[in-house]
Amino acid sequence: MNEIIFHPIGVIRTPFKDLDGMPIQPGGADSVEGEVALDPVYEEGLKDIEGFSHLILIYHFNHSKGYKLSVTPFLDNQERGLFSTRAPRRPNAIGLSIVSLLERKGNILRVGHIDVVDETPLIDIKPYVPAFDSPEVTSVGWLKDKAEKSQIMRSDARFRE
Amino acid sequence: MNEIIFHPIGVIRTPFKDLDGMPIQPGGADSVEGEVALDPVYEEGLKDIEGFSHLILIYHFNHSKGYKLSVTPFLDNQERGLFSTRAPRRPNAIGLSIVSLLERKGNILRVGHIDVVDETPLIDIKPYVPAFDSPEVTSVGWLKDKAEKSQIMRSDARFRE
Repeated sequence: MNEIIFHPIGVIRTPFKDLDGMPIQPGGADSVEGEVALDPVYEEGLKDIEGFSHLILIYHFNHSKGYKLSVTPFLDNQERGLFSTRAPRRPNAIGLSIVSLLERKGNILRVGHIDVVDETPLIDIKPYVPAFDSPEVTSVGWLKDKAEKSQIMRSDARFRE
Repeated sequence: MNEIIFHPIGVIRTPFKDLDGMPIQPGGADSVEGEVALDPVYEEGLKDIEGFSHLILIYHFNHSKGYKLSVTPFLDNQERGLFSTRAPRRPNAIGLSIVSLLERKGNILRVGHIDVVDETPLIDIKPYVPAFDSPEVTSVGWLKDKAEKSQIMRSDARFRE
């Protein structure tokens, strides 16, 4: 099969040294700050980014090995199809988080609402634009009445490699 | 440098056979339907996805070769830092679109608001969850008063390989 080869363009640093006890989504990481350290060779590409209040971070779930197509998510007690969850063990172990941008210093972005483990390899940074990224959602499937719980829940070792 | 190796898990089919004349963001693709054909080996992972009105598609900009760290976006007439844009030529040519889910038939998802070129390799599907993905945005930088134009603008050959 075709391969798609990416390279880390930087690293995400957070207070979360371990997969246990992490916020499971940005909503549960309100007060948590971290930094995105872009490889200095790409710093020119950060021009103008200070104008955006929120960014999309795309990163590699580098601790996730393998996957199962049916998983029991942190927020539920029954098995769900993997692609209807945000579980880290996926056929392509790619993660996405929306973070707030607090400050830029050269190649370093200080960000809030960060929910990834320390030293996570960064794949891409995109500006968050409501006109593109905030559709009028009418249903959230099995997450109905559960998504808000992500504010207070923490991960356990369920998806440990 | 470390490599991150992904494999396409399916393909996105749309009416856009060419990079010219495409909607430049989902907002400009309101009436455009396409389909996400997941490799049948992953079909089990689609269970429960019908409950979600919107999905996040992550895909490979397979027509994009190379990148420049300063680019003039479709929506602007001056150069911007690459990471403050959604331009397809990026150090890692990874794209992200929010689409509406219209119907699922087995391993095929019929989707709306699709803005990618036909036969785009699919990397991941995630459920769109407002509690995770719709922050309270307060600024959109250089896109202020411009993002709405994406509703009517179409691409040109600017980012052709």
